[in-house]
Amino acid sequence: MKESYFKGENLSERSRKNLFILDAIRRRGPISKTDISSLIGLNVVTVSNYVDEFLRQKIVFEKEFDVSKGGRRPLLLDLNTSAGYAVGVGANLLGTIGVVTDLSGKILHKVKNGKSGSGCREVVDSLLTTTAELLDEVKGCRQRIKGIGIGIGGIVDAAKEKVRWPEKIENGYHYLDVTVPLKDILEREFRLPVVIENDATLACFGEQWLALDSDIRNLLYMFSGVGCGLMINSEIYRGTSGCAGEVAVHSDRKEAPYFLERWEADLGIGAEYVKRLQWKKGHGSGGSRASKEAVDTSLGGIFEACRRGEAPAVDVVREAGRRLGLRVAYLVNLLNPEMVVIGGGIEEAGIVLIEEVKSAVSEWCFEESAGAVKIVPTRLGENGVALGAASLVTRQLFAALND
Amino acid sequence: MKESYFKGENLSERSRKNLFILDAIRRRGPISKTDISSLIGLNVVTVSNYVDEFLRQKIVFEKEFDVSKGGRRPLLLDLNTSAGYAVGVGANLLGTIGVVTDLSGKILHKVKNGKSGSGCREVVDSLLTTTAELLDEVKGCRQRIKGIGIGIGGIVDAAKEKVRWPEKIENGYHYLDVTVPLKDILEREFRLPVVIENDATLACFGEQWLALDSDIRNLLYMFSGVGCGLMINSEIYRGTSGCAGEVAVHSDRKEAPYFLERWEADLGIGAEYVKRLQWKKGHGSGGSRASKEAVDTSLGGIFEACRRGEAPAVDVVREAGRRLGLRVAYLVNLLNPEMVVIGGGIEEAGIVLIEEVKSAVSEWCFEESAGAVKIVPTRLGENGVALGAASLVTRQLFAALND
Repeated sequence: MKESYFKGENLSERSRKNLFILDAIRRRGPISKTDISSLIGLNVVTVSNYVDEFLRQKIVFEKEFDVSKGGRRPLLLDLNTSAGYAVGVGANLLGTIGVVTDLSGKILHKVKNGKSGSGCREVVDSLLTTTAELLDEVKGCRQRIKGIGIGIGGIVDAAKEKVRWPEKIENGYHYLDVTVPLKDILEREFRLPVVIENDATLACFGEQWLALDSDIRNLLYMFSGVGCGLMINSEIYRGTSGCAGEVAVHSDRKEAPYFLERWEADLGIGAEYVKRLQWKKGHGSGGSRASKEAVDTSLGGIFEACRRGEAPAVDVVREAGRRLGLRVAYLVNLLNPEMVVIGGGIEEAGIVLIEEVKSAVSEWCFEESAGAVKIVPTRLGENGVALGAASLVTRQLFAALND
Repeated sequence: MKESYFKGENLSERSRKNLFILDAIRRRGPISKTDISSLIGLNVVTVSNYVDEFLRQKIVFEKEFDVSKGGRRPLLLDLNTSAGYAVGVGANLLGTIGVVTDLSGKILHKVKNGKSGSGCREVVDSLLTTTAELLDEVKGCRQRIKGIGIGIGGIVDAAKEKVRWPEKIENGYHYLDVTVPLKDILEREFRLPVVIENDATLACFGEQWLALDSDIRNLLYMFSGVGCGLMINSEIYRGTSGCAGEVAVHSDRKEAPYFLERWEADLGIGAEYVKRLQWKKGHGSGGSRASKEAVDTSLGGIFEACRRGEAPAVDVVREAGRRLGLRVAYLVNLLNPEMVVIGGGIEEAGIVLIEEVKSAVSEWCFEESAGAVKIVPTRLGENGVALGAASLVTRQLFAALND
């Protein structure tokens, strides 16, 4: 099952039907077999056969509809949401977040750890710690945990099950390559099946699985400044070797043209904000309230200042939104998606950022593509990667039933 | 049929199976039912039922295998290639080409018209003239023609069945938008079903249908400098409103950063070549052979000079290849395809261009993506768009059988 899942579309007929039917029940339950049939276009006999198996496995249950419409009361089906739990852990711009969810994606436990660094080692340590904390929380029902999903930056090579981390070294544009056999490390440590996926890809999948209509088929999730996740025809698009979604070129020898560079994850907001504050200080506003109080120059602090409408923060975010918007516009012209979700942490800057992206897209895109796309902030917010990771475990569980 | 085809993946179960089985026969025939079954993973009874219907419709035929392996001789199936013909017409960098093909994609007639201009009106006129010439060639068997496929630049809006043409006006970076109800014009004129598709998309599809292994699933076709065609998971990717594949942003008010600009279709080779010649002339090589003879500054002439290894042509093509390579590298990092086909006319510059693109990809891409991708010139060459257009008609015919 897992193998074919990773190849993208090569699900077996059975897995595909499992997913269609369980997805209908998950999204629309309580629902009758007839409604499932008309929703997904499978005949009622096939739906019935599959549902019988799901009932046997206690992953769905029947309940009687209590408002009589005359005639026999239809039996409605609903997901047995506690038939299994999933662990999902992921990092975004501001920290590492882990969740345990039931099969509906409801968060049962959440752990949040602040950002301890952006290097490979710090991130891996943080993923391990967070996972351990979560498993400790649910140790009473450990047997319900069906697997662990991990969202991580860097380049996930699914075939070799490794993660490579292009780490920028401060004095120049060189990259240090760190290759980590993360799946192996985690499976030994926690003795549960582990699935590892690029963070942007998971955030994209999670948004579509939990927060968007199932008819959003082509979706781009812009993950801060550094990458994107793609769903194409309602499937996760991972590319040929599993590393699609970069939005920059890579070179250890020379600088790329600005648009092609690997941008800072915060779109340069942090550095630019500090620069503006220093300039202001050097230009005689020394008596103002702002310079007497300690100004919060953390990214969270800047975003808060921006949401309050304070001047240097708003300007810096607006300019970053413009840069991000141009990048998004190029991708919208290339891929003509139905929706672009802005997430990965950068969305916490608020409406100013989203509006800049929208305006760049309407300025720079061909009208057909601009007219077809909706630009929205993530609805899953900071939990995006973790929820996507847990949802991927759930999806694999659904697909593999009866196999 | 056509409607669902245009939505991308929403083929009916029957259409999908038609396509799988007929594709196997087309690519591998003569082939036995057992071999079809194991090739595409459908059970032999299903294959048999479909094949019986294909035999009734005379789109496939049976022949006896003439080398006895002992036991009963297996009946082999092959495509009845003359059961229908398709017309395909498309323009590339150097002119307009039209073909009539049989169901195997074999070219029965070909018409080639030189480039008469790059404006919307000239291109549409050229498509109409070429189609009329082709239909005149086959007027003896007009009833076999199943449809006309047209490949065109500009933005094809499938839902509204129009083409919009962002036409650059010489004195500045403004665009003139011309919207043409091309499908309607052609269907009235020729009284045959017409399918219109972006040229790069068709070239991409044609390459995969006729020249590449069926297991190439994720394919990018770089169509000169101005656009690309995409196949994702073995399906044409057209985007949400049918206009995916742009590789530039659009603005009628200001210049975009260089990488994001809509480049000249010839990557600027023509203009740069003339500039170099003039510089040479002004710098005292007046007595040389080259300046006494008339130098061919047409794009075809420059490409020939480049293939002969002549100095300014090679330099100019190499630099253009480098620019194209950087654009390709960005797309390879984003989409992680198995193959990039270089076509649209620019491939006629020869090996120098392809090598520059390859070297840019290996320099600028992350190693996972660079390692997974093959960069090749189009094998269908100048016929690419026309053959893709004819193949799309054939594919629709296959999918719609028994409907």
